[in-house]
Amino acid sequence: MLLVADNLQIVNKTVYNALEKMDPEPIMDMVVRCEQAGADMIDINAGPLTHDPEKKMAFLVETVQSVTNLPIMIDTANIKAMESGLKVSRKQAIINGFSLEPRKLENILPLAKKYKTDIIAYLLYPNSHVPMNAPDRLGVAIEIFQTVQNIGIDEHHLIVDPVVVPVTWQNGNFQAKEILTVIRNLPDLLGFNVKTIVGLSNLTTGYGHMEKKCLLERTYLPMLAAAGLSSVLLNIFHSETIKIVRACGSLVESKVFSWEEI
Amino acid sequence: MLLVADNLQIVNKTVYNALEKMDPEPIMDMVVRCEQAGADMIDINAGPLTHDPEKKMAFLVETVQSVTNLPIMIDTANIKAMESGLKVSRKQAIINGFSLEPRKLENILPLAKKYKTDIIAYLLYPNSHVPMNAPDRLGVAIEIFQTVQNIGIDEHHLIVDPVVVPVTWQNGNFQAKEILTVIRNLPDLLGFNVKTIVGLSNLTTGYGHMEKKCLLERTYLPMLAAAGLSSVLLNIFHSETIKIVRACGSLVESKVFSWEEI
Repeated sequence: MLLVADNLQIVNKTVYNALEKMDPEPIMDMVVRCEQAGADMIDINAGPLTHDPEKKMAFLVETVQSVTNLPIMIDTANIKAMESGLKVSRKQAIINGFSLEPRKLENILPLAKKYKTDIIAYLLYPNSHVPMNAPDRLGVAIEIFQTVQNIGIDEHHLIVDPVVVPVTWQNGNFQAKEILTVIRNLPDLLGFNVKTIVGLSNLTTGYGHMEKKCLLERTYLPMLAAAGLSSVLLNIFHSETIKIVRACGSLVESKVFSWEEI
Repeated sequence: MLLVADNLQIVNKTVYNALEKMDPEPIMDMVVRCEQAGADMIDINAGPLTHDPEKKMAFLVETVQSVTNLPIMIDTANIKAMESGLKVSRKQAIINGFSLEPRKLENILPLAKKYKTDIIAYLLYPNSHVPMNAPDRLGVAIEIFQTVQNIGIDEHHLIVDPVVVPVTWQNGNFQAKEILTVIRNLPDLLGFNVKTIVGLSNLTTGYGHMEKKCLLERTYLPMLAAAGLSSVLLNIFHSETIKIVRACGSLVESKVFSWEEI
């Protein structure tokens, strides 16, 4: 399972302040620590970037690339920022992401085609609501797959995120199981070894203290690994969680792809 | 997932010495600590008991029952000891266990019928070899199911153990995955919500130090829980492992049965 660090996000005060001041040092420091902690990839979650989106995203991508050769994901709802980030990426960055929401289909999907990048597809309805069971999520996956094919994007550029929801939701327990079913069934349904990702921190939103959150992460990750998840977006500084990921590798994983092969 | 303590085993020096001297105190102390640690059931693993099998097993069962009301499993290859234990059990003890090995079919299965107890069935070939993939294990499960029905034992008395093997085996990694497939498919295959159990410590036989073993246990358990495992035989004093079991419960488990219901 590939580890994508979610640490570089604008809601982190250090990142926010560094971006405000265009000060690369704190970001460089964080990225170096992410790589040391075992990250296979860095997600740059810049938020909407209402001011100077192009300049700021270029600054973020270039700062990250100044200290690491790891691949990056560009995670912003701002189209101008997205394209600016893609332009300055040394390697093909991954677009994070799109859904059936019309605005995203129109704006984000063409960028994936233009820059020949991988792109994350969220299994959400066009109104951004979360499907409430596995069959409904798989139905959305088929629709997304057909949309991607129609626009002429190679299916192997697709990375499906089945959308983990907080376990504190009324049906959170049920949803956690349905996600596993989705991951297990996607390759057969779509007819190829489709890549998958989940945002692990979504599971524990609103769920007690950090210790309890981490325990739940460590419990859910092996379930995801056994279902065949290919990558996970997570706090790479949760060292006990990373140990569990390594143990998953020695238990049930066979490396089915690397990002480099694509 | 129900927790069956595997701590009361003859290879433990304290248990061995207590049994030699017929001294109940160390055993009582251990059983109390097992219950405090969260055990739902106590496995009494007495080994072959070559001397005084009936007296010794009766002593063990009565000693355990003197300090707890938890259900017990009786785990011995000695038929006389098994029947002696069943006779003095206050509740219906569970027989651990039998397989397609002719000697066990002839001797152990009739005891389950006579005493109307639950019985663990190991998915092994008649020569006690381990089937090497999920379809072969499921084939054995069908044979066992038919055998149990033919002898007139109610199917709900069956508890299937798919036989976890050491991950250090050449194909241990593959086997660990196949076990999950077996657990997931058994209810559909047999046509009822069949109970399952695994011996967790088998996974880590010969696998490095205790810390590494426990990490692997903590990683495999959520996979087993997500596959639908109903009970696990484990060292109940591994407190971090027990925390993970509880977290599994809050994530994906619905309580499908209790031993009391049977």
